[in-house]
Amino acid sequence: MKARITVTLKNGVLDPQGKAIEKALAALDFSGVDEVRQGKVIDIELAETDPKKAEAALSEMCEKLLANTVIENYAVEIR
Amino acid sequence: MKARITVTLKNGVLDPQGKAIEKALAALDFSGVDEVRQGKVIDIELAETDPKKAEAALSEMCEKLLANTVIENYAVEIR
Repeated sequence: MKARITVTLKNGVLDPQGKAIEKALAALDFSGVDEVRQGKVIDIELAETDPKKAEAALSEMCEKLLANTVIENYAVEIR
Repeated sequence: MKARITVTLKNGVLDPQGKAIEKALAALDFSGVDEVRQGKVIDIELAETDPKKAEAALSEMCEKLLANTVIENYAVEIR
């Protein structure tokens, strides 16, 4: 079973990488870009076949390793 | 208009970050994890209101700056 985890910075948390992209886009003459935030995406291939159990395991992985829940949100999507 | 760009490594391209996550998950006793690949996600807030034009602009941004199309795939999603 394939799953995708998306980890993004919470609102209000400073995102220097996003700001750098914003400035680079402006330097390349892309106008009308208001805000850029960068996060990460983690594609996981699981042996588990029960979607419920897979989702529970993935949430636990996020809490324990993949996301820093103080400053980051995560979303789990079974595909 | 909000958009999300997902940049992932192409198949066959070595992903040391993904491998590191795989090993860390195994060390934390998560079993049944077959493969992990890491990519990035870029959330962009655009002034453009026409979805067609926005998508075209975002694809151009990916080609010119956000993705290295030699080793990476990108997906544009208007939200």
